[in-house]
Amino acid sequence: MSNTRIEPRTLPGFMELLPEKQQIFEKIKSVLEEVYRLYGFAPLDTPVLEYSEILLAKAGGETEKQIYRFNKGDTDLTMRFDLTVPLAKYVAQHAPDLTFPFRRYQIGKVYRGERAQRGRFREFYQADIDIVGDGKLSIYYDAEIPSIIYQILTRLGIGEFVIRINNRKVLGGFFDMMGAKERTTDILRTVDKIDKMGREKVVEELKEQGLSKDACDRIIDFVGFRGSNEEVMAKLEGLSGQNEQFDAGVSELKSVLSAVRAFGVPEDHFSIDLSIARGLDYYTGTVYETTLIRHPEIGSICSGGRYDNLAGYYTNRSLPGVGMSIGLTRLFFILNDMNYLSDAYRAPEDVLIIPMTQEITDAISLSSKLREEGIRTQIYLEEGKFKAKMHYADRLAVPFVLFLGEDEIRENALSLKDMQTGNQVKCTISEAIVEIRKKIAESEKQTPVHM
Amino acid sequence: MSNTRIEPRTLPGFMELLPEKQQIFEKIKSVLEEVYRLYGFAPLDTPVLEYSEILLAKAGGETEKQIYRFNKGDTDLTMRFDLTVPLAKYVAQHAPDLTFPFRRYQIGKVYRGERAQRGRFREFYQADIDIVGDGKLSIYYDAEIPSIIYQILTRLGIGEFVIRINNRKVLGGFFDMMGAKERTTDILRTVDKIDKMGREKVVEELKEQGLSKDACDRIIDFVGFRGSNEEVMAKLEGLSGQNEQFDAGVSELKSVLSAVRAFGVPEDHFSIDLSIARGLDYYTGTVYETTLIRHPEIGSICSGGRYDNLAGYYTNRSLPGVGMSIGLTRLFFILNDMNYLSDAYRAPEDVLIIPMTQEITDAISLSSKLREEGIRTQIYLEEGKFKAKMHYADRLAVPFVLFLGEDEIRENALSLKDMQTGNQVKCTISEAIVEIRKKIAESEKQTPVHM
Repeated sequence: MSNTRIEPRTLPGFMELLPEKQQIFEKIKSVLEEVYRLYGFAPLDTPVLEYSEILLAKAGGETEKQIYRFNKGDTDLTMRFDLTVPLAKYVAQHAPDLTFPFRRYQIGKVYRGERAQRGRFREFYQADIDIVGDGKLSIYYDAEIPSIIYQILTRLGIGEFVIRINNRKVLGGFFDMMGAKERTTDILRTVDKIDKMGREKVVEELKEQGLSKDACDRIIDFVGFRGSNEEVMAKLEGLSGQNEQFDAGVSELKSVLSAVRAFGVPEDHFSIDLSIARGLDYYTGTVYETTLIRHPEIGSICSGGRYDNLAGYYTNRSLPGVGMSIGLTRLFFILNDMNYLSDAYRAPEDVLIIPMTQEITDAISLSSKLREEGIRTQIYLEEGKFKAKMHYADRLAVPFVLFLGEDEIRENALSLKDMQTGNQVKCTISEAIVEIRKKIAESEKQTPVHM
Repeated sequence: MSNTRIEPRTLPGFMELLPEKQQIFEKIKSVLEEVYRLYGFAPLDTPVLEYSEILLAKAGGETEKQIYRFNKGDTDLTMRFDLTVPLAKYVAQHAPDLTFPFRRYQIGKVYRGERAQRGRFREFYQADIDIVGDGKLSIYYDAEIPSIIYQILTRLGIGEFVIRINNRKVLGGFFDMMGAKERTTDILRTVDKIDKMGREKVVEELKEQGLSKDACDRIIDFVGFRGSNEEVMAKLEGLSGQNEQFDAGVSELKSVLSAVRAFGVPEDHFSIDLSIARGLDYYTGTVYETTLIRHPEIGSICSGGRYDNLAGYYTNRSLPGVGMSIGLTRLFFILNDMNYLSDAYRAPEDVLIIPMTQEITDAISLSSKLREEGIRTQIYLEEGKFKAKMHYADRLAVPFVLFLGEDEIRENALSLKDMQTGNQVKCTISEAIVEIRKKIAESEKQTPVHM
């Protein structure tokens, strides 16, 4: 053992939680998994490390700067910076063995060497789903994504949110009508910044891109239009018949909207928002963002869209798809920071057994019986004073403590203490199980987020 | 889009599974998690990347060679190569906020740049549990570990295994009696190789370490002694009274054995094996290995032990603990390779709905109803020929297909096809739910491994 100790510390930008918070994080993750599975998505797990050549096939300057890339022997390696590029590689590589539409979810850590600042993470979880078709993919799959977002956020306890839906063809077609066909991507990028920069600056930037004052105004009025879903659709249909791309987008949007309703998403939880573009070349049709109504400043917590071709860098097979991603680490950080996390899930067990005798065989048998009933049971095996044992129970925040002393063993009973109420009763094992189960059922009804 | 395509491929030594296998992997992982939670272990998640200084505080030559280490800016980083060093760092760093005994489980990927060969992985899952005390930890916790191993392997469907238990103090004390006190670690390392090298070579190596012929023989007879747990204990007790360390080890072993029985581990699933040493300086008391009875050649699938001090490199706080680790990726690879994996869990959904009409609103509503009942439901939204749709269902290996045509919609019914038997019946939604639930319950009774 060396005499100079090394100060134990974690890298900045790497989230490491205390046990109570980790419990809640796991609960949130499990809600996502549960919903993804309910919709028949298959789990996928790809390596954290890949050949740099593979991960960086598409990447541009910003990505290159932010990645963790290094050599091991002769091999140029990169840590994955998202779950989309690995999916593209996976589908291209394994296409003959996959069944299309291929539906996968993946919840995993990704790495970006961003400038460290509060709430920005260099290692963070993404939770992605994608539906990938072979050559084609029905537009109705685009409606499944908002339904999944709705289920997840509702089950988490995030009640007040709106899923904003748009279609890149609608935007692109409209810009084409405004005489800015070639610059669709630039305009989309500029328009995407309207919330951050304000109208004035966006107009200026658009003018620099060669648009007339009139076209700028019409574009900004268009993307700024607010109204019910019916009103927006009416406005769009009023503009139809002038541009093929526009009309195709409007028709897609209409199909998506009707199917989103069929999926049971309440009307006040989704809205067509013509200002949504997602600042990426990648998307080609439907796009989504999800905003917390009371916290629009956070930005989108759940985004995605439709793309024409997932894996063009790896295969000539046409693989259109639709998907979305949740930045789980960031979302958790925000919810925790704003005190929206519930305490309901913080204890790692339902019961702590405290043996009150030297001989612990009976207490151990009792712990096995409870576990057979699916009750998460810890048995405290340290010797020591009663006060120390109760202090341990208090700090664990365990809902129940079971005492097993000589009296209890003789009477084939136990003492059950409800740590929340302080009530303590002597009862049989079966009675205790009923009590404990009642409380577990209650806490399972609680959402991990209270908002 | 570039014209030269990059061949999609995965790094050698990095496991990437097809969806059906991934499903089974996830099922196995969830059994581990379930058991860890039943015993009241809290989940832990630490970064994959840490300061090299932290991870390599203890590491020697072999570890240094195998690690993934690189610089990002001025920071010297290493990818974790196990989950024990990150635990040590975590406990030392957060000790004031933890409750001791601190019980955590962690299932995560670790990285070792080993020479690539079949069945060796450079990225692999470890599934660890540890119980860490503050200054002290009751010997009875050592008995909890075999109980957990027993539960996990039994629930997985790996019925024929034996948990081999030994105590380093027993070995060390005995070697001391043989006049080899100073060289305990060397001897343990040598003896640990007896299965690989054979008795002759081990004797030779021991002699080179300065032991007499007689001492060598007695040591090898001692570690090679086979018998029932009672017989081994009797042998050990016959040697007591000569060495303090030995006696302490025998007493610990006795306590562990009686508590393992109290935890309900059947007598034929654990045995004292005096040849087990675990080739690490790390362990100081109880040690475990777990062997598949029909496949001893695989070696231990589940190992661990008791250590005196978890985090001496980071803190002067004494943190004794006991734990074990499962090399999940390797175990999965072996079970798959030997065809022991069950097919029961390979479909990502319970039901595939195939709409037989142009209008899909009813089919979508049906899918929502099934999901509300907890049934994993995929709805097939592509247009196309019936044959193509059935081909999709076949390839998915989904247990049930639900058809919804005009007749069914008019009659408020559906057609339910059991894909295993080929039976198809027209029935109500409620009847279908009963049928589907019956099959889910059946498949949930199946273990992911058939051995």
